[in-house]
Amino acid sequence: MRPSGRAPDEMRAITIETGFTKHAEGSCLISFGDTRVLCTASVEERIPPWLRGKGSGWVTGEYSMLPRATHTRGSREAARGKQSGRTQEIQRLIGRSLRAVCDLEKLGERQITLDCDVLQADGGTRTASISGAWVALRLAVDSLMKSGDLKQDPITAKIAAISCGIHQGTPVLDLDYDEDSNADADANFVLIEGGQIAEVQATAEGATYDEEGLLRLLRLSQMGCAEIFKAQEAAVQ
Amino acid sequence: MRPSGRAPDEMRAITIETGFTKHAEGSCLISFGDTRVLCTASVEERIPPWLRGKGSGWVTGEYSMLPRATHTRGSREAARGKQSGRTQEIQRLIGRSLRAVCDLEKLGERQITLDCDVLQADGGTRTASISGAWVALRLAVDSLMKSGDLKQDPITAKIAAISCGIHQGTPVLDLDYDEDSNADADANFVLIEGGQIAEVQATAEGATYDEEGLLRLLRLSQMGCAEIFKAQEAAVQ
Amino acid sequence: MRPSGRAPDEMRAITIETGFTKHAEGSCLISFGDTRVLCTASVEERIPPWLRGKGSGWVTGEYSMLPRATHTRGSREAARGKQSGRTQEIQRLIGRSLRAVCDLEKLGERQITLDCDVLQADGGTRTASISGAWVALRLAVDSLMKSGDLKQDPITAKIAAISCGIHQGTPVLDLDYDEDSNADADANFVLIEGGQIAEVQATAEGATYDEEGLLRLLRLSQMGCAEIFKAQEAAVQ
Amino acid sequence: MRPSGRAPDEMRAITIETGFTKHAEGSCLISFGDTRVLCTASVEERIPPWLRGKGSGWVTGEYSMLPRATHTRGSREAARGKQSGRTQEIQRLIGRSLRAVCDLEKLGERQITLDCDVLQADGGTRTASISGAWVALRLAVDSLMKSGDLKQDPITAKIAAISCGIHQGTPVLDLDYDEDSNADADANFVLIEGGQIAEVQATAEGATYDEEGLLRLLRLSQMGCAEIFKAQEAAVQ
Amino acid sequence: MRPSGRAPDEMRAITIETGFTKHAEGSCLISFGDTRVLCTASVEERIPPWLRGKGSGWVTGEYSMLPRATHTRGSREAARGKQSGRTQEIQRLIGRSLRAVCDLEKLGERQITLDCDVLQADGGTRTASISGAWVALRLAVDSLMKSGDLKQDPITAKIAAISCGIHQGTPVLDLDYDEDSNADADANFVLIEGGQIAEVQATAEGATYDEEGLLRLLRLSQMGCAEIFKAQEAAVQ
Amino acid sequence: MRPSGRAPDEMRAITIETGFTKHAEGSCLISFGDTRVLCTASVEERIPPWLRGKGSGWVTGEYSMLPRATHTRGSREAARGKQSGRTQEIQRLIGRSLRAVCDLEKLGERQITLDCDVLQADGGTRTASISGAWVALRLAVDSLMKSGDLKQDPITAKIAAISCGIHQGTPVLDLDYDEDSNADADANFVLIEGGQIAEVQATAEGATYDEEGLLRLLRLSQMGCAEIFKAQEAAVQ
Repeated sequence: MRPSGRAPDEMRAITIETGFTKHAEGSCLISFGDTRVLCTASVEERIPPWLRGKGSGWVTGEYSMLPRATHTRGSREAARGKQSGRTQEIQRLIGRSLRAVCDLEKLGERQITLDCDVLQADGGTRTASISGAWVALRLAVDSLMKSGDLKQDPITAKIAAISCGIHQGTPVLDLDYDEDSNADADANFVLIEGGQIAEVQATAEGATYDEEGLLRLLRLSQMGCAEIFKAQEAAVQ
Repeated sequence: MRPSGRAPDEMRAITIETGFTKHAEGSCLISFGDTRVLCTASVEERIPPWLRGKGSGWVTGEYSMLPRATHTRGSREAARGKQSGRTQEIQRLIGRSLRAVCDLEKLGERQITLDCDVLQADGGTRTASISGAWVALRLAVDSLMKSGDLKQDPITAKIAAISCGIHQGTPVLDLDYDEDSNADADANFVLIEGGQIAEVQATAEGATYDEEGLLRLLRLSQMGCAEIFKAQEAAVQ
Repeated sequence: MRPSGRAPDEMRAITIETGFTKHAEGSCLISFGDTRVLCTASVEERIPPWLRGKGSGWVTGEYSMLPRATHTRGSREAARGKQSGRTQEIQRLIGRSLRAVCDLEKLGERQITLDCDVLQADGGTRTASISGAWVALRLAVDSLMKSGDLKQDPITAKIAAISCGIHQGTPVLDLDYDEDSNADADANFVLIEGGQIAEVQATAEGATYDEEGLLRLLRLSQMGCAEIFKAQEAAVQ
Repeated sequence: MRPSGRAPDEMRAITIETGFTKHAEGSCLISFGDTRVLCTASVEERIPPWLRGKGSGWVTGEYSMLPRATHTRGSREAARGKQSGRTQEIQRLIGRSLRAVCDLEKLGERQITLDCDVLQADGGTRTASISGAWVALRLAVDSLMKSGDLKQDPITAKIAAISCGIHQGTPVLDLDYDEDSNADADANFVLIEGGQIAEVQATAEGATYDEEGLLRLLRLSQMGCAEIFKAQEAAVQ
Repeated sequence: MRPSGRAPDEMRAITIETGFTKHAEGSCLISFGDTRVLCTASVEERIPPWLRGKGSGWVTGEYSMLPRATHTRGSREAARGKQSGRTQEIQRLIGRSLRAVCDLEKLGERQITLDCDVLQADGGTRTASISGAWVALRLAVDSLMKSGDLKQDPITAKIAAISCGIHQGTPVLDLDYDEDSNADADANFVLIEGGQIAEVQATAEGATYDEEGLLRLLRLSQMGCAEIFKAQEAAVQ
Repeated sequence: MRPSGRAPDEMRAITIETGFTKHAEGSCLISFGDTRVLCTASVEERIPPWLRGKGSGWVTGEYSMLPRATHTRGSREAARGKQSGRTQEIQRLIGRSLRAVCDLEKLGERQITLDCDVLQADGGTRTASISGAWVALRLAVDSLMKSGDLKQDPITAKIAAISCGIHQGTPVLDLDYDEDSNADADANFVLIEGGQIAEVQATAEGATYDEEGLLRLLRLSQMGCAEIFKAQEAAVQ
């Protein structure tokens, strides 16, 4: 029995509220149950120095948790003067994932930054960030195409991410905080609509798992992402 | 004529949505027109080292803007590795203001941190932060009193803040971003319900002002804060 | 009765020793009683990147206290690796104040940095810094005009600053450290010769004040600044 | 055909030189072809603050590349003043992996730090680090047991790591730098002797892969780790 | 012929103004010609953590140049967020030198910090700092003995420092900035009254020197320090 | 009797293994007994900004100790976020020393960075670094001359460094860690083949020394460097 009372392959409710902020070229507030992340896409007509003159654009991600997004208050990274290893790991993952579905040459010499700020955390903040960042990116690209700044669509597919884990011996989908704290293994999958895998990060915590276990988690994640792709589709219509 | 079309003494619409996040002991999303700030109050049963053994608690503030709260994306302070002078100035002001209406001895040996994170900016973020922080603080203290952790109410009064300025020669109330960028003088007033002044920060930009000008701004701010006190009262009922 | 034995509207002795250092284009050691600040004006034929090509110059301020300027030794900001919020707040104030009396276009594409280093502190270091920085700036501009590098005088007026406060119910002028530590309210005024206000920063500490109190402090500050303007005039002759 | 001329499932030569430095409680220089990493295990009779009084020890990892370990010189992280996101990601992985085969309660209230310093890089530095760190840890624990400081062996199994990738459509084992730069997908597997998986990090670069591809990479990694386990066994005899 | 017109073994005028600041337990403004350094000694009844319980005190030094102490303005180390290698080298030298004439056990469990802040620089700032720091230290110790906090004098001798160099083939004493910029070799000697050497730092710049050259510089420094010892003696009477 | 059992003027065994890493233009692993330093020379076709357009190249040094090079593990400077004063002092010394035997104009507009990373420490790491850095530099320059990138040899002479000290009253050569910890005085000499002195850094620790003592240390260092020059010659043949 899961602490949440959900079936092993049952996701939390997903909501995506687009246009949550008015300045960003694309934005949404994505929720997976009580996990809520504000994702914005900012278009800038400049590229990183090492890309200059190569006829290519860039897509990158940044991630942060508000200090009181969590059960107990965490210190503010800006006040500590550096980003934690965890934050850096997650924002590298967000950027890499979104670039996996972007034709950077078609984007032209511009940069799109996907800011994922966690307003409330209840497990799965990095996967919600990736799933919401795609929506913000899609909206920003739509606006560039509408205005004629972009002629061709650089986005090649939808991308979504979900966490799975082994909880008391059972593979389960979309862990919330209580489940995550007690899971024997924890995996994040980033999947592309159509069946391809963009990224797997699977970690044993306490227990370990074998090939069979990895496959079962992968299949759960495919079910979960199918649901997210639908929510993304509805949001960007 | 103000760019916003408002009368000189007309405030923007104020909304205060309490309980915006579930983990904080007190929280609200406060809006002054398009300026939206998430304010949370976090109670911790510890105090800064320099207060230990003095029988007193502490109230402090932190402030940040999300990178894309603004028209163009700003860099993330956590990524730059330090907080700007502006950020530090504002968070010192938030803490000082809230302490002005708090009896720290009655609070007991605990700390309440008021995090003010600007989700969307359109002028007046520091004054919205102070006004919303009071609501979050009030809710957190109410919860401490309900649970019996606090016997006496340490909050002595309401406090609110508002900006005023001189725009094309006319003193106006509650500047939005467009007005603020073109104002000749800019002042922030932090007022306590009942008529006392907690803080005045008035700066000439381009033009200067005289004693008469300062008084007219102060009186506008008194009108504005009266309106905010009403909104605070409604929010915490 | 003030701890210093002064009348409520009595300033401490002001001395301004110009040319205190030989390398700076303008310099003075300004004293308000035991508060002593070394102010230097450095002219550089470059401007900040964001001003390039706009036909305008820049005036900025920096502020620091020597570690043992105070009763007990404070740690060195360079050793701690960052400037405190207080330091940043003060140096932003110094720059803003001096720019209020400077026509930056007449200054041409050059930068003048006003370094205010407190050698000994006894209250009022920020206001002494502003008052002394004007003298250093005036001397540096005089030297630019003498050499023909500047054709028109960019300085539009004198500017000075003074602190006032409410001490045991009485508004008093030019607080020293002992008075400042026990004041109920503390205000810094930056005034322009001729009656205009450049900046007001008034903070209640413990007690608060009302409109009447603010006005009385403002009037004291006008008396104090009149005295400082005279000392500045004598110094730059 | 692989750039290295190796068969798809062919590893580079592995050498492990134990006792490479004299001060560390355990140390080795591990080489996978031209990739050479100095791994040391340092035992300290103290634990991180958050573990105090819990009757448990700690195992952690640190990772660095010498500036000229690579084809072109990289800047020194100590000189830049911060560790890159990549460095932090790798050292978190090293610590997590080694803890997966350590019974921290049996270790007692002490910390073992595994320093992995890359002297020369030619692809696969993080996996060589994990494989070598196990040897250093084993030697340090052996010495603690010999001296009687440890009664029970806290190490539960061998752990090793290897990279695999898809190179021009073919899954290949143990990528060197040239292969890694051109791989379509890149995966690092951390495996425990006996068949369990401790960690999978698989990233599509350019191309993506499906379930079948992930499985083929996993099986290659099992072959590679079998070879590493033999080399580890020989080294610690 | 020296740029300064001085004879090869001629020092600049030395002045030592004691009691330059009122808060420090000992202080002086020391001048060697146009080089002026404010030296303060601060007594604190605490010691560094690594000395606790060893029955010994500590003497340490800190050094800084005001931004406009020099011909052209240097950036402020506190603003840059770190102390330069040069600054750290000098402050380590100051602390080491003063400890060479201090019996730390007799000092008791207290720390004396010698702050050397260069108000104006014209060559030889580190040697002036050491020479002035001794005076500040002597005055602070005198005050501790007078108050009865110290029973035995921990200072064992006078210490002074001077720079020498080879200028156009001629060994010269007490280099000013112009001479220093063109010297072929530059040496700083820290000498103890009575003939002992505490520290030699001799660097060839452009040219090099031989054993004979080193000896000639050492002898010049002995002449220079004799003069400084006299000035120190006069100052502390 | 020396703790090491060596005669007062007896060096430890010196070995220099060239080509220790394959990417650097020049490299060696130099050992003085148990002190082992990896020295690499990296050639880059760029120069520091302040040298641009002056027709001159640059030679600079960087230094680091691996965390467990020493008896007890030291913290990693990259993790602490800054280099210690000691590290900066040493790397400034390495760069200055190598520049003393380099004609920077002949080097052309390129930079050579000498990275000295201490793999194992047993006293004398800075002097081993300088002695080994010369070998790496020589090899890198040889390779530039062979490829025709350099026409003229910019290296003017050999340079080497050695430490000496006074141990229980006796001047001794090439201190190891045990001797260094108990020496009364400690001196590092950087000498140029042919008899010239590039740098002397002599510090009294506990005891002091006189002119005679300094001379005896200098003469020991001349004996030691003669031996190093031979080892360097053999290594670069």
